Amino acid sequence: MSRVVKLAVIPGDGIGPEVVAEAVKVLDAVTAASDVSFEKTPFSLGAGRFLETGDTLTDDDLAAIAAHDAILLGAVGGVPGDPRLKDANIERGLLLKLRFELDHYVNLRPSKLYPGATGPLAEPGEIDFVVVREGTEGPYVGNGGSIRRGTAHEVANETSVNTAYGVERVVRYAFALAERRRQKLTLVHKTNVLVHAGGMWKRIVDAVASEFPGVAVDYLHVDAATIFLVTNPSRFDVIVTDNLFGDILTDLAGAVTGGIGLAASGNINPDGAFPSMFEPVHGSAPDIAGSQKADPTAAILSVALLLDHLGLTDEAARVTRAVEDDIASRDGVRTTAQIGDAIAERVQA
Amino acid sequence: MSRVVKLAVIPGDGIGPEVVAEAVKVLDAVTAASDVSFEKTPFSLGAGRFLETGDTLTDDDLAAIAAHDAILLGAVGGVPGDPRLKDANIERGLLLKLRFELDHYVNLRPSKLYPGATGPLAEPGEIDFVVVREGTEGPYVGNGGSIRRGTAHEVANETSVNTAYGVERVVRYAFALAERRRQKLTLVHKTNVLVHAGGMWKRIVDAVASEFPGVAVDYLHVDAATIFLVTNPSRFDVIVTDNLFGDILTDLAGAVTGGIGLAASGNINPDGAFPSMFEPVHGSAPDIAGSQKADPTAAILSVALLLDHLGLTDEAARVTRAVEDDIASRDGVRTTAQIGDAIAERVQA
Ligand SMILES: CC(C)[C@H](C(=O)O)[C@@H](O)C(=O)O
Ligand SMILES: CC(C)[C@H](C(=O)O)[C@@H](O)C(=O)O
Repeated sequence: MSRVVKLAVIPGDGIGPEVVAEAVKVLDAVTAASDVSFEKTPFSLGAGRFLETGDTLTDDDLAAIAAHDAILLGAVGGVPGDPRLKDANIERGLLLKLRFELDHYVNLRPSKLYPGATGPLAEPGEIDFVVVREGTEGPYVGNGGSIRRGTAHEVANETSVNTAYGVERVVRYAFALAERRRQKLTLVHKTNVLVHAGGMWKRIVDAVASEFPGVAVDYLHVDAATIFLVTNPSRFDVIVTDNLFGDILTDLAGAVTGGIGLAASGNINPDGAFPSMFEPVHGSAPDIAGSQKADPTAAILSVALLLDHLGLTDEAARVTRAVEDDIASRDGVRTTAQIGDAIAERVQA
Repeated sequence: MSRVVKLAVIPGDGIGPEVVAEAVKVLDAVTAASDVSFEKTPFSLGAGRFLETGDTLTDDDLAAIAAHDAILLGAVGGVPGDPRLKDANIERGLLLKLRFELDHYVNLRPSKLYPGATGPLAEPGEIDFVVVREGTEGPYVGNGGSIRRGTAHEVANETSVNTAYGVERVVRYAFALAERRRQKLTLVHKTNVLVHAGGMWKRIVDAVASEFPGVAVDYLHVDAATIFLVTNPSRFDVIVTDNLFGDILTDLAGAVTGGIGLAASGNINPDGAFPSMFEPVHGSAPDIAGSQKADPTAAILSVALLLDHLGLTDEAARVTRAVEDDIASRDGVRTTAQIGDAIAERVQA
C-alpha cells in the first residue's frame, strides 16, 4: 500500500531555488526505496513573480497551496532597496500571509550544535534546544497605522494582539514537546514592561504547567534570554515565546550553533486543518544567488522536520543522521550541489 | 570659582546600594582635588521602600529628584516571585516612570571590550560601539490592556506608539555621536514586519542622514543584528534603535563584551530640561545582595558617563582610564569594595 504526499514547493527568490533543489534531491533519495512518494507541485512566488506579474499571493494561489499535504519553501525576498519592490512587501504579503492564513501557530525552530560545526562561542558546551515560537499573533498581526505620514507630526502605532486561545495552544504544544525531550520549559517574554500580553502568557504557562507536572518551568525576560544564549545555551531545552521574541532569539540561536546556514524551521498547524510549511530560517541572500555558494543544509534539515511532521520518523532520522555525518566530516569549500549530493548519497547508504 | 553639582542618589534594591557606594567612592576620589563638588541627596526608592510604605514613586519624590542636576541609580527590583510585590511593578512605576517623566529620550549604552575582559566569543575582534536606544516611546509607553482577563477568551494588546518628534530627536543625537566617533550609523528595526513604525524610523534616518554627509548609514533587521553582534561586532560604531530592540541588543552587547557587570548606561535628556540619570545596565540581583560579590564596575563607568554629561571630561576620562587599568590587571576574586577601592586609588594616582 503506497502513500502519496502532495507537496507544494515554493523555491522563491535568491538562493531559494538552489537550496530547494538540494532539499528535494535528498527527499527523493530518502524515499526512493520506500512506499511513500511525494507528488510535487512547484509554485512560482516571491519577488520574481511580483516583478513579472504584480502578484504577491493571489486567492487562487492560496487555495491551490492549501490543497496540498505540506509545503517546502526556499526563501523569498528581492534585492534590498530594489526600487521596483518599494511598494511590495513580500514578507508580509507572502510569507506571513501563508503563516497566518494556514494557521501555522507553531513556528518550530530547533537549535543544535552539531559535532564539527563551529559557532562564535569559545566554550559553547552542548547546545540542543527548540524554540517554539508563536506564529499567528503578537506584534506580527499587522495591526498598525500612522497619521500625518511624512510630516513632523507623524504618529505610527503597532499593536501586538494576543489571545488566550492563541497562547494556550502553542504553550500546550511546547509543554508536550518538553515532556518528550528533557522536561524543561522556559517562557521568554518581557512581563515587566508588556504587562498585559506578558501577564497573560505567564498566567497561561502557569496554568498549563499543572497538566505537565514532570516539566520544570522557568521564566526569562527576553533581554536576559539573549545573555544566556551566549553564556550558557546548555541551560535551554524548550523555549516558548511570542512571535517577535521568537524571531529574534532564533536568529541568535542559529548564529551560536554555527550559522543560519544550518537552521531549519517548521511552520506547523498541529491540528492538520492546513498544510504545514517547512523552510530554512535564512533569507534569500540575493548577493550570492546563483553562485552555488549557499549551504543547503538548513533546507535539507527542514525536509527532516517535514518528514517527521508527516509521521515518517525513520526517513526523518535518516536525513538528520546524514546531515550530522556530513557536518562532522566537512573540510574544504563545496558548492551547494556538492553538499546536497553528499547528503543524498549518505541517506541512501 | 567652585561648582556644586546637586546629585540625587537612588541606591535601590539588592546589590544597588553596594555598587552605588563604590561609584560614589570613585566620584569623590576623582573630584577630591578639583573645583567641582557633588552635593548628594539619597532617595530611598525601590522594592524596599514599597514594602515599607506602599509607595513606588510619589509626586513629591519626583519633584524633589527633578530639582537635581543629575541622578545616580543603582538598581531597583525585589526578589522575583515575592508575593508581597505581586501588584507592584517597580520597573514600570519607578524606573520607567523616571525615564518617561524626565524625558530621557536618549538611553546611551556604550559597549566596549576592554583589554583583559573576557567575553563568550572565541574571536571577538575589537568591540567598541554605542547603542543609542530611544527611551520615551515605542512598546514601552504602557499603552496596553486586556479584556476577559483570566478567561479562555482573554485578549491582551500592547501598542507601540512612535512619533516623528520622538524618533527624529534621538536619531539626530545618534548621527551627531557617530560624527564624533567612527562615522558609521546602523539603524536597527524590523521594517518588514512593523511596517508603520519601522517605515517612519527608516524615513527619518534617511532624511537626517542628508545633514550628516560624512556618516555612513546602514540598516539591519533586529534579528540579523543579533547575529552580527556575535559574529562580527566590530562592524558596529553607533546603533540607533527603538526602546524594546535597544533593551534586547544592549543586554546581548553587554554579554559579548564581558558581562553586564561592566555595562554602564545613561538615561539622558540632552536638552537639559530635566536631570539625566546614570545607572548600570544590570539589575538588582537579590540573590547575591549584601554578599560583596557584585562587580561595581558598571556603576563606576556610569559615573564616567555622568561626568562626561556634565562637561567634566577630564574627570570622566580619568575614571574610564582607572577602570581600564583595573580590568587589565585583574586576577583573583575581589569584593565589591576592593574593586571600588582599587579604582578609587587609581583615579587619584
Ligand atoms: C522575513 C521575515 C518576515 C521573517 C520573520 O520575521 O518571521 C524571518 O525573519 C523569519 O524569521 O522567518
Ligand atoms: C528593568 C527593565 C524595565 C529595564 C528595561 O527594560 O528598560 C532594564 O531591562 C533595562 O534595560 O534598563
